[in-house]
Amino acid sequence: MSLWEFLYTEIKNAVISGVFSPDEKMPSKRALAVHLGVSVITVAAAYAQLISEGWLYSIERKGFFVTNIRESMPEKNFRPIRPKKNSSGEKTSERTEPKPTKPEGKWFADFRDNSTALGKFPFSQWSKIIRKILRMPDSKLLSRCETAGLWELREEISSYLLRFRNIKAPPERIIICPGTEYAYGMLVQILGRERLYAVENPGYRKTADVLRINGAECRPVDMDQEGIRPDIIEKLNVSVIHVSPLHHYPTGRVMPVKRRMELLSWSMEKTPANGNPPGRWIIEDDYDSEFRFTGKPLETLQSLSEDSGGNRVIYMNTFSKTLAPSFRISYMVLPESLLEDFSKKTGFFACAVPNLDQMALAEFMKNKNFETHIIRMKNYYRTTRNNLIAAIEGGKLSGISHIKEEDAGLHFLLTLDTGFSGKKLKAKLAEEGINAALLSDYFHKGEQGKPDRFPGDADKTLVINYSGLGREKIPAAVKRMERALTACCP
Amino acid sequence: MSLWEFLYTEIKNAVISGVFSPDEKMPSKRALAVHLGVSVITVAAAYAQLISEGWLYSIERKGFFVTNIRESMPEKNFRPIRPKKNSSGEKTSERTEPKPTKPEGKWFADFRDNSTALGKFPFSQWSKIIRKILRMPDSKLLSRCETAGLWELREEISSYLLRFRNIKAPPERIIICPGTEYAYGMLVQILGRERLYAVENPGYRKTADVLRINGAECRPVDMDQEGIRPDIIEKLNVSVIHVSPLHHYPTGRVMPVKRRMELLSWSMEKTPANGNPPGRWIIEDDYDSEFRFTGKPLETLQSLSEDSGGNRVIYMNTFSKTLAPSFRISYMVLPESLLEDFSKKTGFFACAVPNLDQMALAEFMKNKNFETHIIRMKNYYRTTRNNLIAAIEGGKLSGISHIKEEDAGLHFLLTLDTGFSGKKLKAKLAEEGINAALLSDYFHKGEQGKPDRFPGDADKTLVINYSGLGREKIPAAVKRMERALTACCP
Repeated sequence: MSLWEFLYTEIKNAVISGVFSPDEKMPSKRALAVHLGVSVITVAAAYAQLISEGWLYSIERKGFFVTNIRESMPEKNFRPIRPKKNSSGEKTSERTEPKPTKPEGKWFADFRDNSTALGKFPFSQWSKIIRKILRMPDSKLLSRCETAGLWELREEISSYLLRFRNIKAPPERIIICPGTEYAYGMLVQILGRERLYAVENPGYRKTADVLRINGAECRPVDMDQEGIRPDIIEKLNVSVIHVSPLHHYPTGRVMPVKRRMELLSWSMEKTPANGNPPGRWIIEDDYDSEFRFTGKPLETLQSLSEDSGGNRVIYMNTFSKTLAPSFRISYMVLPESLLEDFSKKTGFFACAVPNLDQMALAEFMKNKNFETHIIRMKNYYRTTRNNLIAAIEGGKLSGISHIKEEDAGLHFLLTLDTGFSGKKLKAKLAEEGINAALLSDYFHKGEQGKPDRFPGDADKTLVINYSGLGREKIPAAVKRMERALTACCP
Repeated sequence: MSLWEFLYTEIKNAVISGVFSPDEKMPSKRALAVHLGVSVITVAAAYAQLISEGWLYSIERKGFFVTNIRESMPEKNFRPIRPKKNSSGEKTSERTEPKPTKPEGKWFADFRDNSTALGKFPFSQWSKIIRKILRMPDSKLLSRCETAGLWELREEISSYLLRFRNIKAPPERIIICPGTEYAYGMLVQILGRERLYAVENPGYRKTADVLRINGAECRPVDMDQEGIRPDIIEKLNVSVIHVSPLHHYPTGRVMPVKRRMELLSWSMEKTPANGNPPGRWIIEDDYDSEFRFTGKPLETLQSLSEDSGGNRVIYMNTFSKTLAPSFRISYMVLPESLLEDFSKKTGFFACAVPNLDQMALAEFMKNKNFETHIIRMKNYYRTTRNNLIAAIEGGKLSGISHIKEEDAGLHFLLTLDTGFSGKKLKAKLAEEGINAALLSDYFHKGEQGKPDRFPGDADKTLVINYSGLGREKIPAAVKRMERALTACCP
């Protein structure tokens, strides 16, 4: 290969890999020749080839430029999964919800954002713990981790669950996963794809998406005021139910004990053999129970079930809310009766959470840092919520707004009587840099493709997630909402 | 580019373009060296590389000949392949094997263990990087990460792949996963469960297990000396093939160019409609390519495919071997044609690798720490391997042992002529605290439940994974093996 070919290849590769940015100016032939210590003829030959193949283009009297190959490629090629690097904010909104109308990261206030408060994370404690672990590394640190996760972390979670949630879960029954969505996938592997799964309607759409992409059939089942409807579950021959009984998302409803008992007794019935494998199961997603602002945490379905000898509840929780969504650590508590299937069916997997992260979290929990952190965060979020609600109720929106919240969790519902359609409402807010989902966005399509069914005000009710909102932004955010919604009727 | 690489590229291009005819005899190393005015060592290095990739073949006492690649080339012409710039590598894979008969951690030497060398991990560098990230935390650190992973890390991997593996993969096409096994699950979600997947027999059993637990049908397909057999693939109506062409596990075989071309042309054929969805795919698992001890890394199926415009290869690699199995970071390079399905079907998942770990690895790669680390590890493992082989060959086992290895990867094959059955062989070794798998352990059950088929010596051949073996243990481990196997015949 001659020198000019070598140079040609190098430049082409750099264009392909993005080392040179689209439309970046290339050095002149002479400058590059001097820089590389080769003749101008060599550079000219390489440039000529690159131009004729279209990797570079030239503009008379201006010089040579890098072709934007991502744009000029056929449509299916090089479709970026996200915009190229320079966009600074990496904020992502939930993909399962309708796409925001503005580019990501551009919102003044994003009420779909489930980030946690950056300034409140105990970075220096975390750093200290990691330093300590890496200073005296244990051979465990680099070895493959068993499927269920590191024993130390499972012990800490076990003791935490007992003290804070009254859940009796020995470490053997605790499974560490890299996020709740992966836990669902694992459950489909353990329980089987031949079952019918049910999720709450309205509800968090991703749960159904994850179950389906894992090959399971999944039906949204309507809720009434007390929660998911047992009559529909019975009728549909459901075999597994996913619920958040203690703080439903997004309605915030708490399932009364009566309904919980109904579900438990459904789960303990002998199952008829029509299609589903034996056994009925309830997945209890306790995603934000740490943030109950008054009173003590409610009793879980899991403890009710264990106390009644039932043992049909799979309990789930996550550190996404208490630490941050980027931590990718969640866990399940399996009923005793599923342990054998778990290790038989999924025992060849290694735990997907890095050992270092598991060790750091175990240490963080052991030192009571975690409990202190939760108390701090609870206070912080309570104040944020109170300030936000006060700002809404103390301003121009007071006459047209109604807030519904359960003194729990990191979101509340805000019903706005503006006369706008749901679509218009969101568009008006978007113009002011405010992103929010409607309650109606969480209604699944009904059976047989019928349109979404939801009560009249779901289309004028916003779901306000405030954990990612900086407190300092509250007055301005509410001002913008007022401007968006009351400008026409001052 | 060094002289031998230049020579290698020239000859390879001449083979591809037909300047050298199929089965033409090449000049001897000495003759070519004299002719070109270079050293014999230079020619020898180029020839060795060409032979291991299959462009040339040698016949003992006759010389070197040009492989007939014509007959297996895909329709479209292969463009001459551009040279790679450099060499070195990284890689990993996590390999679970038949359960050890003793509890973990109780072995004096465990040749099934795929841990990496604890003492060699750059703990203090890693600690420094994490401290730096946590000292000036970015809001990105705590936010949900998009499905494909953090852009910065994907950029680093993209540039690494181009420099070290001649793989042109823009960051848009790189997907970060928490381990190869999760990547398989994601692929089943993208490609579909209705396809027939094929894995190599013998082979790493977990691959098939993971595909199956994700709901896909998977068949082990017999290998011949060149790799997985295309005739069986054709007959079974396979739609996706999983292969490790550059260093098969556990046989260590390198798939010659001819077979690679056959697979590529299979992948590019229009697919008949009998059962499978459209499109054929090859999953290329490049798990230990960084640890090729001589020559430069072999060319991937992925680059061959891209160069021929085929784009049917999904490339996979992992940091389990280069860093540690506990790091839980692997990645895939998707063909452009799969990007849309990827984001449509799995776009609602958050990346399951914690952001902190992704940021730390990106920083580690950016600072060239990673490349330095690989070079160190390569030297370390090469010496470990040499010491272990020397100890075996220099002791009592010398008369009854035969070692087969390809100067690559972190395992080799040790055939022992003891007269023991495979079961007895393992039991004898276990008594002395030595754990090892047989080559025959990697044979899948044949079709229709027929017993495993494997060549006669697979039952007396041990698969020796040495990366987790402390170098200081080598003499004693070999002594124990001698005691176990030669005590009766001193």
